[in-house]
Amino acid sequence: MADSRFFANAGPFSLAHIAETAGAEIVNAPDSEREFHDVMPIDQAGAAHVSFLDNRKYTEKFRASSAGACIVAPDVVDQAPDGMSLLVTPEPYHAYARVAAMFYPMPLPNGAVHPSASVADDAVIGENAEIGPSAVIGAKAEIGMGCVISAGAVIGAGVKIGDNTRVGANASVAHAIVGTNTIIHSGVCIGQDGFGFAMGPGGHVKVPQLGRVIIGDNVEIGANSCVDRGTGPDTVIGDGTKIDNLVQIAHNVQIGQNCVIVSHVGISGSTELGDFVVLGGQVGIAGHLKIGSGVRVAAQSGIMRNVEPGLEIGGSPAKPIKTWFRELTTIERLARKKGS
Amino acid sequence: MADSRFFANAGPFSLAHIAETAGAEIVNAPDSEREFHDVMPIDQAGAAHVSFLDNRKYTEKFRASSAGACIVAPDVVDQAPDGMSLLVTPEPYHAYARVAAMFYPMPLPNGAVHPSASVADDAVIGENAEIGPSAVIGAKAEIGMGCVISAGAVIGAGVKIGDNTRVGANASVAHAIVGTNTIIHSGVCIGQDGFGFAMGPGGHVKVPQLGRVIIGDNVEIGANSCVDRGTGPDTVIGDGTKIDNLVQIAHNVQIGQNCVIVSHVGISGSTELGDFVVLGGQVGIAGHLKIGSGVRVAAQSGIMRNVEPGLEIGGSPAKPIKTWFRELTTIERLARKKGS
Amino acid sequence: MADSRFFANAGPFSLAHIAETAGAEIVNAPDSEREFHDVMPIDQAGAAHVSFLDNRKYTEKFRASSAGACIVAPDVVDQAPDGMSLLVTPEPYHAYARVAAMFYPMPLPNGAVHPSASVADDAVIGENAEIGPSAVIGAKAEIGMGCVISAGAVIGAGVKIGDNTRVGANASVAHAIVGTNTIIHSGVCIGQDGFGFAMGPGGHVKVPQLGRVIIGDNVEIGANSCVDRGTGPDTVIGDGTKIDNLVQIAHNVQIGQNCVIVSHVGISGSTELGDFVVLGGQVGIAGHLKIGSGVRVAAQSGIMRNVEPGLEIGGSPAKPIKTWFRELTTIERLARKKGS
Repeated sequence: MADSRFFANAGPFSLAHIAETAGAEIVNAPDSEREFHDVMPIDQAGAAHVSFLDNRKYTEKFRASSAGACIVAPDVVDQAPDGMSLLVTPEPYHAYARVAAMFYPMPLPNGAVHPSASVADDAVIGENAEIGPSAVIGAKAEIGMGCVISAGAVIGAGVKIGDNTRVGANASVAHAIVGTNTIIHSGVCIGQDGFGFAMGPGGHVKVPQLGRVIIGDNVEIGANSCVDRGTGPDTVIGDGTKIDNLVQIAHNVQIGQNCVIVSHVGISGSTELGDFVVLGGQVGIAGHLKIGSGVRVAAQSGIMRNVEPGLEIGGSPAKPIKTWFRELTTIERLARKKGS
Repeated sequence: MADSRFFANAGPFSLAHIAETAGAEIVNAPDSEREFHDVMPIDQAGAAHVSFLDNRKYTEKFRASSAGACIVAPDVVDQAPDGMSLLVTPEPYHAYARVAAMFYPMPLPNGAVHPSASVADDAVIGENAEIGPSAVIGAKAEIGMGCVISAGAVIGAGVKIGDNTRVGANASVAHAIVGTNTIIHSGVCIGQDGFGFAMGPGGHVKVPQLGRVIIGDNVEIGANSCVDRGTGPDTVIGDGTKIDNLVQIAHNVQIGQNCVIVSHVGISGSTELGDFVVLGGQVGIAGHLKIGSGVRVAAQSGIMRNVEPGLEIGGSPAKPIKTWFRELTTIERLARKKGS
Repeated sequence: MADSRFFANAGPFSLAHIAETAGAEIVNAPDSEREFHDVMPIDQAGAAHVSFLDNRKYTEKFRASSAGACIVAPDVVDQAPDGMSLLVTPEPYHAYARVAAMFYPMPLPNGAVHPSASVADDAVIGENAEIGPSAVIGAKAEIGMGCVISAGAVIGAGVKIGDNTRVGANASVAHAIVGTNTIIHSGVCIGQDGFGFAMGPGGHVKVPQLGRVIIGDNVEIGANSCVDRGTGPDTVIGDGTKIDNLVQIAHNVQIGQNCVIVSHVGISGSTELGDFVVLGGQVGIAGHLKIGSGVRVAAQSGIMRNVEPGLEIGGSPAKPIKTWFRELTTIERLARKKGS
């Protein structure tokens, strides 16, 4: 499936090995040592491929599939076509993600500092880390073991990057402490001054921004997103939080664990998010608010007040999702009436 | 007109030569070999300048203009002031664009690899291509003839860039096949992982993104925009499509030909656009939708459903433009009534 | 307070010296030569620290504070706890900004061109300027005295940068004249082509963009923001204007002095802003409009018409803030009625 010019296939793997990685039980497999060569969508897979069924709208395709093996939930086992081996697990998509990552692992760091990189004498580069061409590592910065600092990335003085973290091409990271196994994509800007001014009719005086950016483990920050450093308190992004491209995180924002923040979201200064908060694309949140754990926000919403944990909200200004829908249908009905 | 510190004037050119470039018929010109030195707005142009009239609200200025020559549509020929030579064509603005590009052509590539660039041994650099300072070209990448890879740009391993394509300063292009005569502006990020996770209460597992980005010919992608690579299928941008700054194109999105996508638009994963779709600024489109050819969308709209070809829509959630306007005026009227 | 790995404390300073910088009158200080070592928030400050009280909701904390000195407005002097020295001024936050900047001044430029930078032979580098690793300075560019051009930044041919201006990591500046004491943050793209095409059913023809970007003194432009150059006229940003991250400024836009433009704002081509205009996050403004001085716009608003000076507006399409609020409450009431 994958273009070999960009992706190296680490296979083949035996069904037994794949099942172990998937955390799945093998069903209907005469030979667990049989080898599989690739992952493939359900309608394209052949005898040497592993596929998966997660979204039930593809069940018809599953029944007609020629895949040699398929990762499935227990309740569809009896619908499998003859001759298909099954890898049964309650979470097929998670299992597929692990199997696909086994076939196509991220390229290992090359363990070298490129001769065109500029590394400060007192910077510390961990074992097996890769420092790409034209990359820059500032004074006293610490780069962990197995990190990849891609071409053109700039790591500021004093910054600490945890083990196995990757920083994309032309990203910049300053005034920050970053955890392990985190991915900072290309073009991301971390640690610049927050937008803080003493405003007045005589002009706006810059207020020194004396805090840092603290980023946890297993975080992902999408391309060209921005995270400003704190004013004195820090800006914090919790473990496991995933941030999409072109997102703005202002100074002093505190984001909990495992949040999902979609593209073009803007979070204003000093706002706090709990854990597992989901923000749809282009959502805006005003400053100094508290958004509780588990809150889910529809795309393009504008949040101007605190939100209790677990609520689903939408609209601008945002309100509970049912209230918002009722307002939308009320307007529709009234406009139709007037128009008739 | 143009500051010579930034723009080199390739003129003068004879009226005959200008007419040929414009694809226009010369009217009212005693001497077609007369030379013109620059292009200029209608109200600033003098005897040695070529101007144009496209927007009819400037007809008054046209009548009073001192321009030596003017590119116009046939129906305003009889309103021209005495002594002005005319270049007559049904599409004056297109003709002007070509003439202006003749006076101020894009600087040619210098045909050299800058000594500070890092070019992989097995990369292929086409004839007359320019590789700027601190630029990086990865293993087995292919750069076409006459390309400009600007300072600090990073071209990933295996990437193919077609002839005469330009990549701006500090842009990054990975996992991508790019056509000819395309412009990728500064800071653009192409080909990074899409935002794909198997989500769950135990955390979000990254799903390998095994597709590519395929970009056609004559495409333009604005500064700091992002195009994620596909998950298995590719992300595709068709020939002639123009994308403004800070736009987000998610994984597996398919964009047809000659679309126009204004700044801050976000298109979610697996959505398909036909040809000649126009999206206003800050429009958001949900995932897995089909937007038909010729659809026009008002700025800030939010699209949550498929859209039939040729429709004009607006609002969030978006609806046919007349329905949206009627809703807006209904609310206005009701609020006025209650307020009185 | 500040992490010494990132911020160097220039103190201690005597109370007299601090008062002079603050422009404040010393009250209740037995010893004006007493030294202070740091700035600190009101609830964390100790005897050796200077704090401030601006927002009155912290008055309780002020009364209970152990700060050795505090910058305050005249009317809270009598609420100060015993033993606290006061620095009295009508604008405590402005005064604090100056004092904090004295304790933590921006690092001085190192006055050197890094050996990995590429500087054109005919570029002019001012006294004491710093040109960072992998930075690129184009032909005939002029960099003022005391400037910092950070790692990976690309300054195009002919660009002029005024004294003491700072350009962040991996930013690019082309076709531009930039004033003094301005800050262009990381990843900013300035001076690329505007989004200008002669559109038509046969495809869109690029219109040469022959103007520049003119940026004043004391301007700040946030990370990954974009400013396109003009089409012939220039794109202009006035003195003292502060622009947040990920903002789009299209070609020919003219922005006055001391405006404040929050993250994700998009301003379309040829629109003009007066002075002291404040735009909330994610505001969009259509092209060719005039927004008067002192206008304030709520976050996520969409502006489609000219706006008179001094108005407060909100909504999409935007209207006077009271009208907008009335519409919002009208819808709420009607939806509640129908739902009951």
